[in-house]
Amino acid sequence: MMTEPAALEIKPIGVIHSCFKEKFGIPRQPGLVAGARGSLELFSPYNDITMVSALETFSHIWIIFLFHGNEPGKWGRMVRPPRLGGNRRVGVFASRSGFRPNPVGISAVQLESIEQAKGTTFLHLKGIDLLDQTPVIDIKPYVPYSDRIMEAVDGYADQPEREKLSVSFTAEADAVCQTLEAVKHPALKRLIKEIVGNDPRPGYYALKKNESEFGMVLFDLNIRFQVTGHQAVIFAIEKKNDE
Amino acid sequence: MMTEPAALEIKPIGVIHSCFKEKFGIPRQPGLVAGARGSLELFSPYNDITMVSALETFSHIWIIFLFHGNEPGKWGRMVRPPRLGGNRRVGVFASRSGFRPNPVGISAVQLESIEQAKGTTFLHLKGIDLLDQTPVIDIKPYVPYSDRIMEAVDGYADQPEREKLSVSFTAEADAVCQTLEAVKHPALKRLIKEIVGNDPRPGYYALKKNESEFGMVLFDLNIRFQVTGHQAVIFAIEKKNDE
Repeated sequence: MMTEPAALEIKPIGVIHSCFKEKFGIPRQPGLVAGARGSLELFSPYNDITMVSALETFSHIWIIFLFHGNEPGKWGRMVRPPRLGGNRRVGVFASRSGFRPNPVGISAVQLESIEQAKGTTFLHLKGIDLLDQTPVIDIKPYVPYSDRIMEAVDGYADQPEREKLSVSFTAEADAVCQTLEAVKHPALKRLIKEIVGNDPRPGYYALKKNESEFGMVLFDLNIRFQVTGHQAVIFAIEKKNDE
Repeated sequence: MMTEPAALEIKPIGVIHSCFKEKFGIPRQPGLVAGARGSLELFSPYNDITMVSALETFSHIWIIFLFHGNEPGKWGRMVRPPRLGGNRRVGVFASRSGFRPNPVGISAVQLESIEQAKGTTFLHLKGIDLLDQTPVIDIKPYVPYSDRIMEAVDGYADQPEREKLSVSFTAEADAVCQTLEAVKHPALKRLIKEIVGNDPRPGYYALKKNESEFGMVLFDLNIRFQVTGHQAVIFAIEKKNDE
């Protein structure tokens, strides 16, 4: 019988600032929404610029993070991955679900730049699938030599791929979008199109015939849209009340 | 100023059984030595077979592990990656070194099979770069869709690649190898050839002109070899004294 190794205390080295303020709307994988930008703010003493020296020579990096907002210890032996339409159960270790024994996630994202500002270090990221305020425990370079496995077989690739939604805006929503783009959120329309186009609805919704209106929080905004078939219409972009 | 998120206690879910009993000789990346096999033994309650249900449909999986055997808290802001010949310093977050603030590692390996035996669950792995007794904290499927980044640029790819060593055996070592292959270690010779062929010597040794004899532990064996230029000769395969 094995002696079980001791537990280890993991301390966050930084935190994610992201346009995604809640889980709904977050791309299911990194890289899916190229316009999804965010930054990683490093805490002292990890904000010493020498600790990321030469990292800028890599185009992509791994963010090792903690799934937060989950109740600690809340996980089941099996889960229903959204990628499988939410109606097939697989083992928790056969999924990338955040509800797992050790709530650690890995995400390969594009590294745009490294900035020293406000007395700390920021890594500016692109193509993220990370919730705002996500605690980060490690950064590693993405090494194509070992991380890019050409012969890897995807066990779920035989599943029918979720169809993209075609996204349009009402005249009113379009006008709000244009105003916001000018003053605060450049490329907002494209970002909304990308996110909604990937159909952020959970798998099981696809089976409900009566639900057609959805809302998601992006930056300080409530984005509301209606889905009919494979058509999504953005009909409202509202400031969140609590901001 | 941000409030730093709380620390989290991480508990191993299993342990690695590997032919690599010490750091010297371990391939620098997973996949480098295809013949390097090992297994992951899952601890209760994570050894419930339903927890890995459907994982067998993936050819490759991520092993998220703790670098063990390191003194806790032993890390520096900069490291000298062996891949850069050991003579160039980069930030610790620009390396995959095990000496890092949170000693968590990620390794993509081939999943050969899943076995239920001795009242627990074993994942049989291939192409590993993991030390024996490595504590494992998570398993995830390798998802080509998001993990295989075709456009990723490797910041260190401009470094001259380390030359492979050509490996031969003395008649005596060859005879010992044949005997061991017959009774206990099938394909031992090929495994030794692969490991030594990848030049397991640390980078800085390459600069020392006087050191030519090396030893490494593989299974319960001491493998001793001599390097001259790019030629390695295996001259002894001995049972370890303490076994």
